Amino acid sequence: MPVTDFAGAVEAVVPVDAAAAADAAAHHDRLTKPRGALGRIEDVGIRLAAIAGESPPPVPEPVTVAVFAGDHGVVAQGVTPWPQEVTAQMVANFCGGGAAVNVLARHAGAEVVVVDVGVATPLPADAPGLLRRSVRAGTRDLAEEAAMTGDEAVAAIDVGVEVASAAVDGGARLLVTGDMGIGNTTPSAALIAALTGRPPAAVTGRGTGIDDGMLARKVAVIDRALGRVRADAAPLEVLAEVGGLEIAALAGFVLGGAARRGPVVVGGVIAAAATLVATAIVPDALGYVIAGHRSSEPGSAAALEALGLDPVLDLELRLGEGSGALLAVPAVQASAKILRDMATFDSAGVTDKGDPRP
Amino acid sequence: MPVTDFAGAVEAVVPVDAAAAADAAAHHDRLTKPRGALGRIEDVGIRLAAIAGESPPPVPEPVTVAVFAGDHGVVAQGVTPWPQEVTAQMVANFCGGGAAVNVLARHAGAEVVVVDVGVATPLPADAPGLLRRSVRAGTRDLAEEAAMTGDEAVAAIDVGVEVASAAVDGGARLLVTGDMGIGNTTPSAALIAALTGRPPAAVTGRGTGIDDGMLARKVAVIDRALGRVRADAAPLEVLAEVGGLEIAALAGFVLGGAARRGPVVVGGVIAAAATLVATAIVPDALGYVIAGHRSSEPGSAAALEALGLDPVLDLELRLGEGSGALLAVPAVQASAKILRDMATFDSAGVTDKGDPRP
Repeated sequence: MPVTDFAGAVEAVVPVDAAAAADAAAHHDRLTKPRGALGRIEDVGIRLAAIAGESPPPVPEPVTVAVFAGDHGVVAQGVTPWPQEVTAQMVANFCGGGAAVNVLARHAGAEVVVVDVGVATPLPADAPGLLRRSVRAGTRDLAEEAAMTGDEAVAAIDVGVEVASAAVDGGARLLVTGDMGIGNTTPSAALIAALTGRPPAAVTGRGTGIDDGMLARKVAVIDRALGRVRADAAPLEVLAEVGGLEIAALAGFVLGGAARRGPVVVGGVIAAAATLVATAIVPDALGYVIAGHRSSEPGSAAALEALGLDPVLDLELRLGEGSGALLAVPAVQASAKILRDMATFDSAGVTDKGDPRP
Repeated sequence: MPVTDFAGAVEAVVPVDAAAAADAAAHHDRLTKPRGALGRIEDVGIRLAAIAGESPPPVPEPVTVAVFAGDHGVVAQGVTPWPQEVTAQMVANFCGGGAAVNVLARHAGAEVVVVDVGVATPLPADAPGLLRRSVRAGTRDLAEEAAMTGDEAVAAIDVGVEVASAAVDGGARLLVTGDMGIGNTTPSAALIAALTGRPPAAVTGRGTGIDDGMLARKVAVIDRALGRVRADAAPLEVLAEVGGLEIAALAGFVLGGAARRGPVVVGGVIAAAATLVATAIVPDALGYVIAGHRSSEPGSAAALEALGLDPVLDLELRLGEGSGALLAVPAVQASAKILRDMATFDSAGVTDKGDPRP
């Protein structure tokens, strides 16, 4: 059955292949290097084998980065110094090829797909390559009411699944998450607090740069919103109550990628929040996720820790757009090549001293 | 005057261009992203501009990684579980293209130059591409006597300068350090302790994997050797007393790269020790160094901290060969492309909220 929407994706996700992972781990120990000496590169290679169901895994290329854009009613509370129209301006910048995500995608050989899933400001008619899938023109103000209805959240998830599945149909073998939405670190922090059980103050950061007063307001807004979320609320309810349209779409993108057995590189705090949502709904999706980057937002580290994921990079980025995940792509691809192309102790005639790990 | 040896390199190094660095920093703040949001990528871009003397800097390519190989008399003390002949076996593996450095170099589009600067075991006659520059067949046992004479240390530095300069003559615009030498974490830790003033136990690690007994022996050997080093010893004397031939060559490679105004990506604890030596001799060389990777050896962090360098990557590698630095190459090149190719707030029509840094 083709994976075209949320329900189809949930149905289609199967666990990654533990036997292929074990084969990859055993093969690492035959390669001409001290056991474990390639650190996290070895872990990523093992994960790629588990996802592909074979060892060595294929090199994950071509690459598609999907940038989901949406606006947030909560900006009315003064949680960001940037005006809401910057979301639309940056979507135009993505379509024009001038943003960081474009530069980094060209560098990584990745295709950029830009998706309007809920931008509030009208977008230009001539936005080359823009996928218009707006569910509504921005969320409601989560400080006052639910950001989305359940149906809206599902519709946004559907968009993410569709984009992931279309990318795989188009040949992509590595999916990368991207996001744009003025104010979106607020719903992300709210989701991370709700889904990890940590206090909002511990997972809320300065986003693209706010002062102490604005940070205190942001934490207070999240505290208030979470007061409406029951402790036993389903992940989908939490998403609708305090999430965002592009975050829901990213959760769908992760689920869609997993359903299509494609590795998904997630980067940044927005994608980390979406991954928490996706894997709370379908735990087996976690095996398909590779943490590309830990952003300097505190929620990023909290989410990755809750997910048990070690990020490939930690470059003190706080940009979003998929920039951190794209920077990790070469290392992810290298991890497959290590398993495919390195000589073994036997083939190279190098003396193996066995397992020297303490 | 062409830079062909140690003396010529020392003479030729000039400070990097502070005005170009300032231009790059100012340009970052005009690009369509929150100020500072690309974290360490921005720092690397500024450094590349300072090295090139222009902003935006050219994309640093093509890339050459030089792997300097040497043996160490100190292996007689039982500081490593690997037999000395593995150095020669791995050199053959490098020349055959099967080692991690070869796989990662192909992935990064880098040329690999393998240099015998002092391998103890005879190398095969048919080692394609091997540069034979052996100064002596391994160092003396630094536990008992000076590892090298001053003349030997200078001869090894000369080799590194020659290799860096030849790479630049051949078109390379990014130099990457690599190393191979069974036992070489011992002289590296000794150099790092001597040049940073930290106690040997704090900068000595398990290398490619040793047990507690071997680690204690390693620290004791270093303690003993450093007893012969006067507090006011010149860096070259310290290098000769407790260093290694490939470490001396790497110091020369850093100096040669700096003398030719080429950025040098250093990775791993061996290259970090060599960089301490090089910059102790010629402080202005430091501006040409980009720290590619912090290895899991404790000496790596200590050396980078003393040098004031933030590494691009931290992937828990402990392999050497230049693997960590090569993995950093795509991010280093991306940092130049960000400065060259991103749209500005003005050009993209995006509203700039000024400097929101707290």
